[in-house]
Amino acid sequence: MARSLGRLFKGFQSLASFPAMRAQLSHPSVCVSFKTMVALPSPFSSKPRDFSLPNPSWGSEMLRLYEYYNSQCEVETEGGEKQGGPWRRLPSYNRSLKYATGGVYLSKIIQSKARLFTRNIRDPGAAFEYVLFYNKDEQRCVGIFQAGHLLEGPPGHVHGGAIATMIDTVTGSHASLLSGPVMTANLNINYRSPIPLGSTVLTESSMETKDGRKTFISCKVTSTDGSKLHTEATALFLSINVSHLLLGG
Amino acid sequence: MARSLGRLFKGFQSLASFPAMRAQLSHPSVCVSFKTMVALPSPFSSKPRDFSLPNPSWGSEMLRLYEYYNSQCEVETEGGEKQGGPWRRLPSYNRSLKYATGGVYLSKIIQSKARLFTRNIRDPGAAFEYVLFYNKDEQRCVGIFQAGHLLEGPPGHVHGGAIATMIDTVTGSHASLLSGPVMTANLNINYRSPIPLGSTVLTESSMETKDGRKTFISCKVTSTDGSKLHTEATALFLSINVSHLLLGG
Repeated sequence: MARSLGRLFKGFQSLASFPAMRAQLSHPSVCVSFKTMVALPSPFSSKPRDFSLPNPSWGSEMLRLYEYYNSQCEVETEGGEKQGGPWRRLPSYNRSLKYATGGVYLSKIIQSKARLFTRNIRDPGAAFEYVLFYNKDEQRCVGIFQAGHLLEGPPGHVHGGAIATMIDTVTGSHASLLSGPVMTANLNINYRSPIPLGSTVLTESSMETKDGRKTFISCKVTSTDGSKLHTEATALFLSINVSHLLLGG
Repeated sequence: MARSLGRLFKGFQSLASFPAMRAQLSHPSVCVSFKTMVALPSPFSSKPRDFSLPNPSWGSEMLRLYEYYNSQCEVETEGGEKQGGPWRRLPSYNRSLKYATGGVYLSKIIQSKARLFTRNIRDPGAAFEYVLFYNKDEQRCVGIFQAGHLLEGPPGHVHGGAIATMIDTVTGSHASLLSGPVMTANLNINYRSPIPLGSTVLTESSMETKDGRKTFISCKVTSTDGSKLHTEATALFLSINVSHLLLGG
């Protein structure tokens, strides 16, 4: 048992340098200062698709906000050199472990067909379109979210569970950036105003406190100009050892 | 304005007798005492598919629990007559308004492509497989939920947002049965133990209190034998006029 655990841990340690695993656990990753570009999967590419890059389904508001934050991922110094800016784009993949080495032990646990819930539909624009940016100095995370037609709850509006999913995604990514691997322990969500299907909204999270294994994050979902509050939430995350998950904690 | 609202209301009143709208707003609907049967969409049928009926993706535990509750939807009296039992199965569709009459005004608001978030994937077993049963005398609702491989969050486990979605579905349906059309106002969710992908769990809700427009429901997600508590939640729903939604409340 101890030996097999050791092999599992070895596998996981080696995963930490792979982008898909970083995305899943939301470890920091390098901000790439792309200009807006179309990112669709290529049948000849073995690289995973980064779903956080613009695609043709993105509306003008989604693109405008992407450009706004992305342009602040890299800044030019007085000497004309480029350096990291205050924001960092977080890449996003649809698999946890597909691109990992050492997966021989993990493949017994993770089904090969498994896909991240928020990236499980290939049709661009149909469900969750989102990109996350992180500002370390301000301890803030921003998610730009365009809600597709497959997320319906009340007629013509986004399902409360889809809103909860986006809140869990933004706050969970934020907590992982602050505290390493975490699991959601509590989500307390107040729904103030329904979100029409097809609209783009901002999901902004702030760190409240850290206390031992606990990381507290607050979050609000607003219209893109901030004038309308759609949803407010608090979230609590617990730091975990990855073995906790593998052993069914 | 008043006139167009009147026309909208007329449209909605006429919707109330259509199964898809009943499912969306979770109005009471007749329990059908089917024996286990396969229900897949027919290309020649104009009737909506009822997703709450068994399909080939359902595992043995999902089927066993379905049979257990379904067998209590109809009971036989001493005289050999059949009558409604303590439980009622709630049918489930993937559209709010597709099968409604009077949709001429609504079609301007609801996109024709819109699908209910929990029923937006056609591949049986890939995402949410669930069926809800309601016990009016005990004021209880039970959701039997089989979590497909497209619901991944933490590696090998169900996404917190997918669990929130199922809790919103069960408690929201329950609140609608008690109070008519409602909107989710609050979900407070404590995640106790992660749910492995592929497993079947029980989501049971109970009415706590009703106070004016407010309906309070509590909920827990457990293993099918009840021995393991996965998630606990409380939910608050507010009774609404449908016009609230159409006017963007």
